[in-house]
Amino acid sequence: MTSNSPRQADASEQSLLRIFTVPEDANSTLSIIEQKLSQDLAGFLGNSIAALEKPLSEIETDFQAFEIPAKPRFVSDYTDEIMQNLVAHSVHTSAPSFIGHMTSALPYFVLPLSKMMVGLNQNLVKIETSKAFTPLERQVLGMMHHLTYGQDQHFYQQWMHSANNSLGAFCSGGTVANITALWIARNRVLKADGDFKGVGREGMLKALRYYGYDDLAILVSERGHYSLGKAADLLSIGRDNIVSIPTDENNKVDVNAMRTAALALQQQNIKVMAIVGVAGTTETGSVDPLNELAILAAELDCHFHVDAAWGGASLLSNKYRHLLKGIELADSVTIDAHKQMYVPMGAGMVLFKDPELAHTIAHHAEYILRVGSKDLGTQTLEGSRPGMAMLVHACLQIIGREGYEILINNSLEKARYFAQLIEQHYDFELVTSPELCLLTYRYVPKSVQLKLKEAITHNDFTLVATINELLDGLTQFIQKHQREQGKSFVSRTRIRPARYQRQHTTVFRVVLANPLTSHEILAEVLTEQTEIAQLDNEFYPQLMAL
Amino acid sequence: MTSNSPRQADASEQSLLRIFTVPEDANSTLSIIEQKLSQDLAGFLGNSIAALEKPLSEIETDFQAFEIPAKPRFVSDYTDEIMQNLVAHSVHTSAPSFIGHMTSALPYFVLPLSKMMVGLNQNLVKIETSKAFTPLERQVLGMMHHLTYGQDQHFYQQWMHSANNSLGAFCSGGTVANITALWIARNRVLKADGDFKGVGREGMLKALRYYGYDDLAILVSERGHYSLGKAADLLSIGRDNIVSIPTDENNKVDVNAMRTAALALQQQNIKVMAIVGVAGTTETGSVDPLNELAILAAELDCHFHVDAAWGGASLLSNKYRHLLKGIELADSVTIDAHKQMYVPMGAGMVLFKDPELAHTIAHHAEYILRVGSKDLGTQTLEGSRPGMAMLVHACLQIIGREGYEILINNSLEKARYFAQLIEQHYDFELVTSPELCLLTYRYVPKSVQLKLKEAITHNDFTLVATINELLDGLTQFIQKHQREQGKSFVSRTRIRPARYQRQHTTVFRVVLANPLTSHEILAEVLTEQTEIAQLDNEFYPQLMAL
Repeated sequence: MTSNSPRQADASEQSLLRIFTVPEDANSTLSIIEQKLSQDLAGFLGNSIAALEKPLSEIETDFQAFEIPAKPRFVSDYTDEIMQNLVAHSVHTSAPSFIGHMTSALPYFVLPLSKMMVGLNQNLVKIETSKAFTPLERQVLGMMHHLTYGQDQHFYQQWMHSANNSLGAFCSGGTVANITALWIARNRVLKADGDFKGVGREGMLKALRYYGYDDLAILVSERGHYSLGKAADLLSIGRDNIVSIPTDENNKVDVNAMRTAALALQQQNIKVMAIVGVAGTTETGSVDPLNELAILAAELDCHFHVDAAWGGASLLSNKYRHLLKGIELADSVTIDAHKQMYVPMGAGMVLFKDPELAHTIAHHAEYILRVGSKDLGTQTLEGSRPGMAMLVHACLQIIGREGYEILINNSLEKARYFAQLIEQHYDFELVTSPELCLLTYRYVPKSVQLKLKEAITHNDFTLVATINELLDGLTQFIQKHQREQGKSFVSRTRIRPARYQRQHTTVFRVVLANPLTSHEILAEVLTEQTEIAQLDNEFYPQLMAL
Repeated sequence: MTSNSPRQADASEQSLLRIFTVPEDANSTLSIIEQKLSQDLAGFLGNSIAALEKPLSEIETDFQAFEIPAKPRFVSDYTDEIMQNLVAHSVHTSAPSFIGHMTSALPYFVLPLSKMMVGLNQNLVKIETSKAFTPLERQVLGMMHHLTYGQDQHFYQQWMHSANNSLGAFCSGGTVANITALWIARNRVLKADGDFKGVGREGMLKALRYYGYDDLAILVSERGHYSLGKAADLLSIGRDNIVSIPTDENNKVDVNAMRTAALALQQQNIKVMAIVGVAGTTETGSVDPLNELAILAAELDCHFHVDAAWGGASLLSNKYRHLLKGIELADSVTIDAHKQMYVPMGAGMVLFKDPELAHTIAHHAEYILRVGSKDLGTQTLEGSRPGMAMLVHACLQIIGREGYEILINNSLEKARYFAQLIEQHYDFELVTSPELCLLTYRYVPKSVQLKLKEAITHNDFTLVATINELLDGLTQFIQKHQREQGKSFVSRTRIRPARYQRQHTTVFRVVLANPLTSHEILAEVLTEQTEIAQLDNEFYPQLMAL
């Protein structure tokens, strides 16, 4: 229709308004699909997602149109189309045999609650568009703060709902959480003082001049998450000023090496603005020695941040939370609820030990975020954002500490079980043991294991490197093939194991977060990998011929 | 239960696993609520949200617990609780009479689709956890790019799905979009060159030294969004280096003043790294002269960003898109789909004219975001994030250009109608006319209007100021009272109208985005405001006694 034709426009307008006023019919395509999803999510995903992987280039052919379609479409037609083009070729992230990612099966109740959240369409940037969602979010941050720092009742009464202060910030994910923490750390080390109005107002050049530093640096394990580099770039600290500290044979940062590096930087007049401890590295799941890092941070008088985006959920286990001991000494802690807390994607948090910590990034605006208001937007990196905190709130209440105790303990114990299974298997090598619920391993036929051992005994590092290169190829082959078969999925990464002279080594990586992953499934994953290995006609034959 | 009691743990574990395996019963509290919501969203919200406003301090009493509950809870109990504590005291953002925000009624189909999105739980950071969602998101960005820049078929065939390039970035919202654009602008102006590895790697100090600048600056209208200040802080440019340029009597930036400011900065050896045009200011809805800004950016050889977070949706109207002419000359453009594109909260975008623009912020990581992959995470600020692009995709396809044409045109024309209504009303003053669908006004009794006019004629600016101060108080009273009554809602802000010597003036602010807002509702809003004015016993009597 053209806008010149009022009568036609009126008719179209009426039919258009129906999408806002007339609910989906219970017998419509979309409603039927929704019912299936509500009644049996696993079945829906299992039936809707194609088992065999389609190459990305083929999937892309369905997403070539670059013009927004002129004509409106029926919801049912659109639904049919995305079931074929989109849903069928998405990833079954909640399948119990898909153990390569940090996603998991979701509890059923989050589905209707998510729909309610969308229907309410609150905007958490300010009270006026969120009302009760604001105290709810503050409560979630308070509960997570208590889980991490365990302050007393008086503390939470004073701070949890205090305007101009915050126990943390809700974020879309761990990356924004880490950026927020380092933003605060930078602004504190280069804070307003005398005539100087602070780095936030005057910028980096004047800040460094005022304080007389030649540069800033952030120290973190070589296993630190890539979001830290992103933060250093964004914050004008520079990626090269993320100083990567070696790890020990357990993939934990070497605190003495970090101390040495920090002292060397100080001598060059480079201010160490923060050290970051990793509580659950993305590649090996290792936890840095947080107590020792806290001591070092105190020595250096710098911010101590802990990136527990993935590992932080383990605090919910009374049995295993000791693995994160020292986390309560951190100035700030990142925890993603969408990783091991069984909340859907989009729920990151950064927690602040000191409720006044975020003052240094506070900002206000006239029509919005008035000074003294309880608007959450005054102390967050993001502006408008949805009420995701509601889903974390729901999980904390419905699952409860006792529920999480079981879920987390089972995950950790399942990882230990799988590690045993791998070690007991003739043809597999456990590369990193699970400290939390993440481990790495690879397929190494028994004969090759013996060859490797012998080569190491004889210091024949050339042979070791040759064998490992072939194994890298085989690991890639198996991982890719297994993914394409669509029955199960492990991810792969490259790490530098101490036992192989820190050479880059490709390994399978497994995260055992899904409560529905059974021991049988784990055994089958290994069986399938063994079978796939025999299919390779490039690396496998060479390895067997060694 | 304790983890020492295996038998009990097993029983609890079985009941716990049910939340992952047993769907919500169709007769459960949550299912019944979900049905109501699906069958009549407006009715559900109208019935569930309390009409009368409860003070925030009272709402907070329901969110005092700071310990995660020990015991799991029944979903039905939790649901009952949040219906009373949370939903009842949230904001009815989609009510047709709530015209104070940029939110609107949502089309019904986004509810089941959101649920599907949550159930699929894809993570867009990389292909491995998103598959078809990645090409879908690239297509959405391509379509929005085409809407904005209108390149030819060849262009989109070449770039839309090209690894290592991007036509834009999907973000949680406009703030992250604006930060991303300015991050790119900063990294381009301080790019790698010769021995220098770029600001992203070496940091700001070395970058400014290398290029020989004393500082950076960003120029924007005094009406620029607060997220730009946040970006300047985060990026170490400094909030004070956001140079605020005055606006003309139509609230559009004065380009000559901006040119003068830029030349003065250049003379101080301060590099103007970007100028920002606003296409729909948050407070007055005005659009800067984008063509002229593009010319200035070319003269200054700097990045030209357009913040069209709210106004960008108007490009969907063939009738009115001319209001944004010049936007196609911008290097980057921010558009929020969750504002006037009828998508739920959490869907921001930044578009790049040049598909290679984002190279300067690209980053990679070993286990994830491999070089040459099509992982979206390589060129975004955020890491893990949900498949929100699906909801934008759905709206673009189901509403189509013809549908958006009607929706946008109606919004703009409704705003013009409301402006007329205000101007024709004896006791109201239109403060800023709607250029798009946002306007500001205030209640000024006819007798006071005459007094004001007289005072201005006699250059009695003291009297003008006195009257305006009283009017400010009255406007605040009316706005707050109307909000508390819960029948309708307009927001308020403070602007500096040219006609009142640029004095800060409190005004009502109205955004006419909701297709369900009728002419009758608009008339009622004015009637209600007139009635509330008489209730004020502080400012109103003083004004009438003038």
